[in-house]
Amino acid sequence: MGKIKYNLLKKDGNARLGSLDTNYGTVDTPMFMPVGTRATVKGMTPEMVKECGSGIILANTYHLWLRPGEDIVAKCGGLHKFMNYDGPILTDCGGFQVFSLVKNKEKDITEEGAIFKSHIDGKKMVLTPEKSIEIQNKLDSDIAMSFDECPPYPVSYEYMKKSVERTLRWAERGKKVHNNPNQSLFGIVQGGEFEDLRELSCKETVKMDFDGYSIGGTSVGEDKPTMYKMIEYGVKYLPEDKVRYLMGVGDPIDILEGVERGIDIFDCVLPTRIARHGQAFTREGKKNFNNAQYKEDLRPVEEGCDCYCCKNYSRAYVRHLITVGEALGGTLLSIHNIRFLIKLTEEIREAIKEDRFLDYKREFISKYTKK
Amino acid sequence: MGKIKYNLLKKDGNARLGSLDTNYGTVDTPMFMPVGTRATVKGMTPEMVKECGSGIILANTYHLWLRPGEDIVAKCGGLHKFMNYDGPILTDCGGFQVFSLVKNKEKDITEEGAIFKSHIDGKKMVLTPEKSIEIQNKLDSDIAMSFDECPPYPVSYEYMKKSVERTLRWAERGKKVHNNPNQSLFGIVQGGEFEDLRELSCKETVKMDFDGYSIGGTSVGEDKPTMYKMIEYGVKYLPEDKVRYLMGVGDPIDILEGVERGIDIFDCVLPTRIARHGQAFTREGKKNFNNAQYKEDLRPVEEGCDCYCCKNYSRAYVRHLITVGEALGGTLLSIHNIRFLIKLTEEIREAIKEDRFLDYKREFISKYTKK
Repeated sequence: MGKIKYNLLKKDGNARLGSLDTNYGTVDTPMFMPVGTRATVKGMTPEMVKECGSGIILANTYHLWLRPGEDIVAKCGGLHKFMNYDGPILTDCGGFQVFSLVKNKEKDITEEGAIFKSHIDGKKMVLTPEKSIEIQNKLDSDIAMSFDECPPYPVSYEYMKKSVERTLRWAERGKKVHNNPNQSLFGIVQGGEFEDLRELSCKETVKMDFDGYSIGGTSVGEDKPTMYKMIEYGVKYLPEDKVRYLMGVGDPIDILEGVERGIDIFDCVLPTRIARHGQAFTREGKKNFNNAQYKEDLRPVEEGCDCYCCKNYSRAYVRHLITVGEALGGTLLSIHNIRFLIKLTEEIREAIKEDRFLDYKREFISKYTKK
Repeated sequence: MGKIKYNLLKKDGNARLGSLDTNYGTVDTPMFMPVGTRATVKGMTPEMVKECGSGIILANTYHLWLRPGEDIVAKCGGLHKFMNYDGPILTDCGGFQVFSLVKNKEKDITEEGAIFKSHIDGKKMVLTPEKSIEIQNKLDSDIAMSFDECPPYPVSYEYMKKSVERTLRWAERGKKVHNNPNQSLFGIVQGGEFEDLRELSCKETVKMDFDGYSIGGTSVGEDKPTMYKMIEYGVKYLPEDKVRYLMGVGDPIDILEGVERGIDIFDCVLPTRIARHGQAFTREGKKNFNNAQYKEDLRPVEEGCDCYCCKNYSRAYVRHLITVGEALGGTLLSIHNIRFLIKLTEEIREAIKEDRFLDYKREFISKYTKK
């Protein structure tokens, strides 16, 4: 047990093939992390998640702090035991949820931290950098995230500058109280679409010497070209020997764009969320199983896919389940979608190994976007 | 492949230990059948159902007729392939659903059959004895049920007499068109709480020589003593060499009372339905995991239970999932509840084998009802 260690194995352009030594064995990067917001990947057992080839999974500090509370998770032996996941777990810092789930008039961001009303019962809550680390410590994840402010998009340069500076002070405060030799701590680079602010955030965060770095403030409303620019600015001043994590991004094309720019880890609720609404990722783009065209379709959700859903069920059955609202429909498509993204990262790794990442990317996107 | 064969192995009072040779191997009785209304046991994969020790499972003709339609199931290779269940499947006749799900003013029961408006889209539907058999034939279940009228409780003697006579004519009509050497056909005994009508129904149904017999018209509003009387009247004139199925009954105490009166097979949506609402069967009665008392309870849902839920998760985790509305909570409790009822039948079989069924029953009920 100890801190994670990133091993850069090979580069193809800026795309990186690597591995991470964790408390639960070595996992490969680029990697997609399934999201288990409330200590469960929605609609799936941990065994199902593992069978999809999962490495690290993510759980949400904000949600678990509110319910059931970090003390109960700790009493149950920590997150791994609580949710029965025998693999590495990363917890986010809770900041993004405060900024996205709590209404503006019900929160106040001060130097101290975030003061807000719980979105569940209206109770007054205070989340500080120290508190965030303390909660994550009790949750006993393998990787904790520094507490950051995640401003919406767009904000003014002045607002973003102040925010970046405060996030740096918060990172420092969090690092000071973090005191768990078996839990790694990541710093978060902010700065929106402003190149110099990303540079500032990056350089100052790196100075504090975290175990890994993540690019924050993407997927908060910006357009795709802006997001890709943010990644470029964010990655530019990061050390090669530390792992890089792009938070909240899981669209297949965005994963490819991220890898091209040097990102190693991704996470997103997308695969399970669209699954519950009847949608599946496929090589030919997303398919919606609410559509009548699949009514009598005997083929698997995606031909050639090796997931539990595709190996055992027809489109007709999946469509039936989705149409009548049976939970198994969402479960089967969640399995497929998570396997799809993990398979994508497996293929990306192969492509980097063989110096053909850009070819792979071009080919994938051309099929995926062809109508 | 062929018709089922019931083997009576031993009796302890009227309680019967037996086995059923089916198209998917031999299964033991007394048996509890999990219910997969719409070709899925709610919230569970077929593997989970099997791991609970399931033998036969039940699927609903009415629901599958309406959606996705029996022709689609047939096109997909029949129910087994459609839902990926590698074990025997029994389909009900659809009658009970017409009588319970469709409002009175939207249905008309005639000699021909049931004419009603679909509870989904209001479309006019006609379900006759012939149609019910035809649908079940296409679904390709291992056991089909005769189409019967299932009157509410209570109705007048005159109404029930006419109904029983009509159900006998319907059974005859269904048997005439049933023409599938690999599908068994069961007759249904009706007659409500009237001893002579149960006798009439029983004797006349048996004359038609079905592959098994079921007791209908229970759990439709009558009190428990009346239900147990109905079972006694219903079983009285059934042949020893055919299997006996009590429809829609799955409360642990009712299973014990049924077995005592000579019933071999039970089914009920209860274990999965109460699971979704956070309730679990245990030896000490039902437990409600919405209750705060389980908040920090590290024990499994039921100590000593061998199910997937109890082997891997704490009450605190299950309560967390139920409280926040995560699907996995219902799934875990469904697994536990189904395993609980199947385990109950396993213990019942052991008890019959060792001539101590009544002792077992008394002991179980005394623990189960002690507060």
